[in-house]
This record gives sequence, structure tokens and C-alpha cells, in this order.
Amino acid sequence: MASRIPTMKLLSLVLSSFVIVQIALASFFTYTGMRVLVNQSTFPANFTILKASMVEFPALNGQSVSYAVLQYPASSLNPPHTHPRAAELLFLVDGSLEVGFVDTTNKLFTQSLQAGDMFIFPKGLVHYQYNADPNNPPIAISSFGSANAGTVSLPKTLFATSIDDTILAKSFETDVSTIQALKAGLAS
Amino acid sequence: MASRIPTMKLLSLVLSSFVIVQIALASFFTYTGMRVLVNQSTFPANFTILKASMVEFPALNGQSVSYAVLQYPASSLNPPHTHPRAAELLFLVDGSLEVGFVDTTNKLFTQSLQAGDMFIFPKGLVHYQYNADPNNPPIAISSFGSANAGTVSLPKTLFATSIDDTILAKSFETDVSTIQALKAGLAS
Amino acid sequence: MASRIPTMKLLSLVLSSFVIVQIALASFFTYTGMRVLVNQSTFPANFTILKASMVEFPALNGQSVSYAVLQYPASSLNPPHTHPRAAELLFLVDGSLEVGFVDTTNKLFTQSLQAGDMFIFPKGLVHYQYNADPNNPPIAISSFGSANAGTVSLPKTLFATSIDDTILAKSFETDVSTIQALKAGLAS
Amino acid sequence: MASRIPTMKLLSLVLSSFVIVQIALASFFTYTGMRVLVNQSTFPANFTILKASMVEFPALNGQSVSYAVLQYPASSLNPPHTHPRAAELLFLVDGSLEVGFVDTTNKLFTQSLQAGDMFIFPKGLVHYQYNADPNNPPIAISSFGSANAGTVSLPKTLFATSIDDTILAKSFETDVSTIQALKAGLAS
Amino acid sequence: MASRIPTMKLLSLVLSSFVIVQIALASFFTYTGMRVLVNQSTFPANFTILKASMVEFPALNGQSVSYAVLQYPASSLNPPHTHPRAAELLFLVDGSLEVGFVDTTNKLFTQSLQAGDMFIFPKGLVHYQYNADPNNPPIAISSFGSANAGTVSLPKTLFATSIDDTILAKSFETDVSTIQALKAGLAS
Amino acid sequence: MASRIPTMKLLSLVLSSFVIVQIALASFFTYTGMRVLVNQSTFPANFTILKASMVEFPALNGQSVSYAVLQYPASSLNPPHTHPRAAELLFLVDGSLEVGFVDTTNKLFTQSLQAGDMFIFPKGLVHYQYNADPNNPPIAISSFGSANAGTVSLPKTLFATSIDDTILAKSFETDVSTIQALKAGLAS
Repeated sequence: MASRIPTMKLLSLVLSSFVIVQIALASFFTYTGMRVLVNQSTFPANFTILKASMVEFPALNGQSVSYAVLQYPASSLNPPHTHPRAAELLFLVDGSLEVGFVDTTNKLFTQSLQAGDMFIFPKGLVHYQYNADPNNPPIAISSFGSANAGTVSLPKTLFATSIDDTILAKSFETDVSTIQALKAGLAS
Repeated sequence: MASRIPTMKLLSLVLSSFVIVQIALASFFTYTGMRVLVNQSTFPANFTILKASMVEFPALNGQSVSYAVLQYPASSLNPPHTHPRAAELLFLVDGSLEVGFVDTTNKLFTQSLQAGDMFIFPKGLVHYQYNADPNNPPIAISSFGSANAGTVSLPKTLFATSIDDTILAKSFETDVSTIQALKAGLAS
Repeated sequence: MASRIPTMKLLSLVLSSFVIVQIALASFFTYTGMRVLVNQSTFPANFTILKASMVEFPALNGQSVSYAVLQYPASSLNPPHTHPRAAELLFLVDGSLEVGFVDTTNKLFTQSLQAGDMFIFPKGLVHYQYNADPNNPPIAISSFGSANAGTVSLPKTLFATSIDDTILAKSFETDVSTIQALKAGLAS
Repeated sequence: MASRIPTMKLLSLVLSSFVIVQIALASFFTYTGMRVLVNQSTFPANFTILKASMVEFPALNGQSVSYAVLQYPASSLNPPHTHPRAAELLFLVDGSLEVGFVDTTNKLFTQSLQAGDMFIFPKGLVHYQYNADPNNPPIAISSFGSANAGTVSLPKTLFATSIDDTILAKSFETDVSTIQALKAGLAS
Repeated sequence: MASRIPTMKLLSLVLSSFVIVQIALASFFTYTGMRVLVNQSTFPANFTILKASMVEFPALNGQSVSYAVLQYPASSLNPPHTHPRAAELLFLVDGSLEVGFVDTTNKLFTQSLQAGDMFIFPKGLVHYQYNADPNNPPIAISSFGSANAGTVSLPKTLFATSIDDTILAKSFETDVSTIQALKAGLAS
Repeated sequence: MASRIPTMKLLSLVLSSFVIVQIALASFFTYTGMRVLVNQSTFPANFTILKASMVEFPALNGQSVSYAVLQYPASSLNPPHTHPRAAELLFLVDGSLEVGFVDTTNKLFTQSLQAGDMFIFPKGLVHYQYNADPNNPPIAISSFGSANAGTVSLPKTLFATSIDDTILAKSFETDVSTIQALKAGLAS
């Protein structure tokens, strides 16, 4: 008789470990890294991006979608950049925001967004966002049609990566001292 | 001399019409259909979906991304459904929410989300969301890795489309009168 | 002289093992799991699916195609289901068959097929097949544009996976006791 | 009163034409071009292919799948060919069949299939089928992972399209008279 | 008798017009816009790109490949740019060339190429080429894995498209006068 | 004090090894296997292909592009072949060349190319190139919209892979002795 009790205990352990596995798997599909936004007591002092891409949230692998949350304090901006692998669909949930992108014929498209607006930055094009309103800091949620959209930030890519000064001076049709000043500014 | 003035006026007209075209094009990339959410004074009485897919926002064509905003009053739910063309990445921006999906081996994965959580519903799988909290109505923003994800709502697809009663009774291993009762319930 | 004989034997062994490898590789591209259909003496008593997907036939990996053979005894059916990753092209090789699918606008399309007919179930949509003829049991061959189309059987996905009774009752606009009756029916 | 009758008739016409449209749409998803196989009284005298691709069955457009039915009388063959846009999954439903393909390292893979066997011809590779059995003519159903797989029949592509004799003689490392004999044979 | 001659003439006309159609179609697959390079008597004074993409050569539509020929006189450069829709595989056929690209972690990769070398610029990343050799002007042929790779030239996209001076000054962490000087330089 | 010197040496070693890693990585994106063409003193005696595909140049993996350089001495040819995974865009950089391809309706398209011309061979179709000019040996650079286009050379695939003589005789509507003669010719 006594031998049956340990067997039942073992069975119970097996069952409960199975339940734990189930819960563990369910949480694999959940990402809690944005909860900090809910508990945030003060708006960040600088422009801030929180990402939920395949790197932070591995369950996105193969699902072709990811998120970023963007917060713009007074007079801050998200400098000109591109995403090599996806378009960006920005949803402005609070505040107002100036956005722009440049197409491959070098035409600039700009828009002043108000809360509730969406804006699509087409695949591979240079774009930026700027908060001109000193009072009401905007928050945006951006979605990407890739689990790993990637970001190429142009000021840093161009002036904070030791590309030769002469090449940059020629590229921007300016002199080497201007390039060095730009590099010094971006290095800080 | 007089002839120069009309020419300048014409030029001015041409230029300003060009500016209008530029602005028109820039607004093509903007979607304002979600502004109603910002101005919304009372929470909707029933579960509500606002979509920004290729149908409502044509600039999404070819960009492989779209949005939906979901509002769940007390005890409401988004009944079991599938999206034929994309995974869904749900971001719970307010309240709490019960979510679940079933994989192709018939395993159920459920999770209780709190504000700030994200949950990925993998491509093509049956899923649902339910608000069990009577006090704090949740709001979610869902993103899809397709400009046209599509939705197949299962209760209506199964019981509100005149599929033969006998076929449904056999499918659900029940009798025809139960099917007819279900159809009557969903028809109202 | 003697030393030449072992060398020749070794060579012979090397050659024959090479031949075996070649044959092994050729059989990698062959699937014999459907031969049971040829030797089948009596029609199966229940609706039966035999699959040749990537799981059963690994050579299909990367080739974007797979098969299933479906047999429908009198009054049997393939209940409403979806394939998350492919359209299904059904070829009715014997008997007659009632088929149907529901599009994303909730419109039902039905057809009575006779032997020799093909029917396409578009990607991701809910569909079923039913044999209404008690005498001549139909056989169909279905092809999928994916090596791993997947199947979501809706009665079992909805009512045999412990989704909460309240959620289901709300989804199908019925009461909990009807849901429990459906679950009991499908559990048997 | 009289005026109401025509109105009702008109309504009735509108409704019935709507029903016709529904039926027409459902038949759009059906292909009946293979029914000839069911009614076929004698086996064809020559190797015969019946196709159900996007050309014959427009509803396959965008669904990435298509069919062909192949019939091989005694000693007939489907000569070496490629499909530019899909792999082929052959299902031998009756008889026996010799099949082969050559990979890009020029290795030949051959197999003797019996009824019930499947064989996968990988994407873009040269392959053929041959019926060596004089008594039991085989029938195969082939499925393709494209609605429009295309076929490049090599004997005709090479020797029935006026490619210059000198170029062909050099290609096949033979003389011009052999090429001309091959062309004459294939032209008949 | 006389009546037969016009008939034969007509037939001859029909046949020759058929031949013309054949030749016309064959020339559809030919692009002659690069012949100018063969007849070129002097090396161009400025950096020059000749493209053969879908725009110049419509037969490339759907074929996922295109070309550009690049000529770099002494001290010239192809300034930092991205291609939104393809990687670039550069083949240096004459001279020597300094090349570089920056990955998404802001790491710079540079290489000094000599005649006969190839270099791959991965999809979507910022890259440039520079000719440091005053004597032997290099020529490169670049291939793209898209019929329409697109080009985003960064100096002009950033400083020749009326993006607001304040936004640019903030982006590049410099002052408005530096931005205006850069704009003036690039405008000329 | 003495202890500081080894530390600095160590640091120096660490730094220089870091530099070596950077250079190694940069060279990963460079392919030098075509330099032999630059140093080539005599034109090759036979038709020659030099490839830069994923096999020779692993950095092409995932970049959907590759190259081949083709050299045609007097009266040489690239015999009829297909590429299973890409179109070919041929750029004739020197000499003249006869090219042709056959579409899926068995229509032949031929063209006489001169230096500077490009020709597109569409995906999956049989094509060839032939140098009819005894004096000026042509050189072509071909680009493919795949890192691994693959090649199926038809004479060898058909007549140098032990496909059964009877099958080939039937395929080409000739006798077994002609097939054996073709095989003997291609085996040498």
C-alpha cells in the first residue's frame, strides 16, 4: 500500500511540471518589456526609443512584425534615418509631431500630425520626426512589417564612424574643417 | 509692361498649384481615421474594432503593415477568429485582458495581459481576447505584417452563413436543433 | 599475386557501397506511404486522411508542394477547417462530394462535385467537404502549395481545447450549458 | 394594384439574377475539364497530358498550386524536360513507371515506381518518366507548387526550333548531319 | 497566271513582316545604351553612372537583376548612398578604388580594391566609393539583385531637399549657419 | 614601473589583434578570384567560365546577386543550358557574340551582339552563346539575380549521365546507335 503513495506523488509532480511547461510556453509569446512605460512617472529628458523586435522578443521570429515606442520631449527629434528591411507605420497616440521623408527623386514630403494620426514611411526611404511643441510631449507607436527592420541613423553613420575626412568633405561639397567640426559635435 | 503682370500672375498660380499638389501627396501618406479615438467622450458600449488597413488607408499598398485599435467594454470579447494573411502583434495600452490561441496540435495557450504587455498571435492560428475586468475597460493596438491581413470570424463564418444544418450537426457532433439554436442566437 | 586479390575485393566493396549510397539517395525522393491505398481491401468506416507532407516525406522540404488522400464513407464529412499556409486544390477521383467555403465577407460558396472535378479552396478560408451519397464512397486527392500547409480543425480547436466556457458561450451567443454539451459531444 | 405586380416581378428577377451570380461565382472555383478522364472508354494511344493550370482554370491565380494528369500507353515516355517555376510531385495511381532526374552536379537519380508511390522532381532539374511495362498502362497525377509551372520540353526546344546546325553540332560534339537527322526525326 | 504573282508578293510581305516581328521581339531583350562606353574617346571629367535598370531596359521587369557602369576620374567619388531594394555587387574592371560601408551597429568596413576585385555592399546599408589614384581612372560594373534597386544619395537627400534648417542642425548637432553653408555648397 | 610596460604591450597586442579582426571582416566582403583575368597573358584556348557565386564568395549569401565572366575563343560556344534559380543579364564587354534562347512556346529568339550590348535570358529558359568571329575573341560579364543560380548544361545532363539509351532514343525520336554515338562524343 505504502508504495502507492510515492507513485501518486511522482505522478502529481509530473503533472505539475507539465503545467509549468505549458505556462512557460505561453509566456514565450508575451513581451513585458514595455511595462516600464505604464509605470513611468516622468517623461524622459531626451528622445527615447523602446523596441520590441526579434532581438528583445524572440517569439517574433518568422512573424514579420515588430514594434517601437517613441517619446519626444520638448524640441527633440528622431534624426534622419532609414530602415533597411521594412516600412514604418507611425501612430501618434499623444501630442503633435512634425514628420518628413524624401523619396528617390529627392522630393521632400512633410506633415504636421496631431494625436490619433497615422503616417506611413515607405520602405528604405530617409525620414525623421520632430517635436516642435514645447508643452505637450508626443508619444508614438511605430509598427514595422518585419521582425527585424534594422535602423541606419544617418548623422552617426556618416560622421561618427571614421569615414575619411576628405571623402566626407567631397561628398558634402564642403571643407575638411567643417567635417571635423561636425564629427566633433557628434562625438560628444 | 502690362503684359508682364498677367504672366507673373500665371506663374504664381502655377507655383501655388504645385504647392497644393505637394501637400496633397503628403496627405496621401497620412491617415486621420483614428482621430475619433482622441475625441471619444465615452467608452463604446460594445466591443469595437477600428482598422487602418489598405482598404481605409491606400498608401499602405505594398508596405506590408497595418493597424487595428480594439476597445473592450466590461465582459466583452473578440470572438475566436483567424487572419488568413498575417500574424497579429497586440499591444495592450490600457486595462487588463485575457488572450488565447490554439496551435495546429490543438494545444491552447492563454495569458493574462496587463497594461504595457505585448502578445503575438502566430500566423493563421485561431485566437480570441476577453475582458474579464468589469471596471477598467482595456484598449489594445494591434499591428499586422500585411497591409491586408483579412479576418475570418469563426462564430459567424460557421453559424451565420447558411452552411447546411446536417453538416454542422455532424461537424460539432451534436443534433440539428442545437445547430438551429446556435444559428438563431447568432442571427440576432 | 596474392596481394592483388584483397585490393580488388576492397575496390569491389568501395564500389558496391557507392552504389548503395546512390540507391539510398534516389529512394529519398520516393514516398511509399500511400501504397496501403492500393492494397486496401475494404473502404474505411470513418472519414480518413492520409498525408504526404514534409513531416512524412522529408524530401518535400523547400519544394512548396504536398498531398493528402481523403476517403469519405457514407454520410461522413471533413468538418470545417483552415490551412494556415496554403490553398487546397481538391481532385475528386471517385464518387460525388458536396464542398463549401466561406470568404472573408462571410459569403458561402457551395458546389456538388462529380468524379473528375477539381475545386480550389483559397488560402486561409474556412471550408468543408461532405459525402451525401450513401452508395458510392468518394475518394479525393488534395494538393497544397506548401510542403507544410498545416490544418486547424475548427470543432476541435474551439470545443476540445479547454477554452473557457464563458468565453465560448459569449462567442457563440449561447449559454454555458450548450457549450458544455458541445464539449462533451466532441470529447467522446 | 396592377402596378404592384410588375414591381414584384422585377424584384423577383433581381433576386433570381442574384442567385445566378452566386452560383456562377461558385462554379468559378470548379474545374470540370478532367471529367473526360472518367468517361474515357479506351486508354490513349500516345503519351497524354491533361493540365489544370492557371491557363485552363483561372481561379488558381494567386493560389500557388496546379495539376496535370499523365497517361502512358505501352513503351511511351514523357521526354526529358524542366519546369521553370515549380517542383513536381508525381503520384502514381495505377501501373508501374520508371522515373529519373539529373541534379546540377550531373548525377542521375532513377527509381522504379509502383502504384501508390510518390516521387518529387526538385525545382528546375531535368527529369523524365518512362513506361517499360507493355501490359498495364500507368496513370499519374502530378501537382506543382505554382499555378503556372511552365514546361520546357528538351528534345523539341533543342531540335525543333531552328537553332543553327553548327551550334548544335558543337554543343553535342557531333557532326552537322547527325543534327540534321535528329531535326528531321523530331520534325515529323 | 498573272493573278498568282500578286498573291505570292502578298505572301512574301506577310512572311517578311512576320520576320520583322520576330526580330523586334528579340531586340526587346537587348539593351544597346551602353555602346557609348565602347566608342568613348575621352574619360568623363566627373564621376558618371550609366544605368541599365527596368526604367532604361523594360525587358528586366520581373527578372530581378540590373546593371550600372561607374567611371571615376581623378579624385572623384560616389558619395554615401543606399539602395532601398537590393544589394550591390561591384566588379572593378580597371584601376584601383577605395570602398566602404557602415553596418547597422555603426561599424565601418573599408577596402582598397585593385583591378579584378569584387566587393559586396549588403542590402540597405550606407556605402561609398572613392578614387584616390590621380593617374589611372577606375571603371566598375555593378550588378543589383533587383530590376529596380533605387538610389538614395545622402548628401542631396539631407541637404538639397528643404528639410528644415533647425531639424538638420539638431540632427547633426551643429548650428544653423553650418547647415546653411552645407546647403549652399550642395545647391551649386 | 616595469610592470606597466608588459601591460602596455598587452594592450597594444589586444588593439592590433582587434585591427586584424576588422581587416579580416572587411576582406570577407571582397572577392579576389577574378584578378587572374587582369594578369592573363593569353586568351584561353577553350570556352571558359569564372564564377563568383555563393560557393566561391560566401559573403553573397542572402544578397540575391552573383557574377560569371565568360571568355569565348574562336568558334567556341557555351552550349544550351538553363539556370534553375535566376535570370541571366549578359554584358558583352569585348568582341561580338551570337546569343539565343527558346521560350516555353518553343519560339527561338536570336541576336547578334556587339561590344557594349546587354542581353537578358529570362528565368528558367534554355539559352546559348556562340562566337562566330575567328579574330576578335569576345568577353562577357553575366550577372544573376540569385547568389546561387545553378547551371544545368543540357548536352551533358542528357548524354553524359547514363540515362537509358532506349529512353533517350525515344525522347529524341532516333535510334539507339545515334544515342550511343552522341554519348561517346560527349564522354571524350
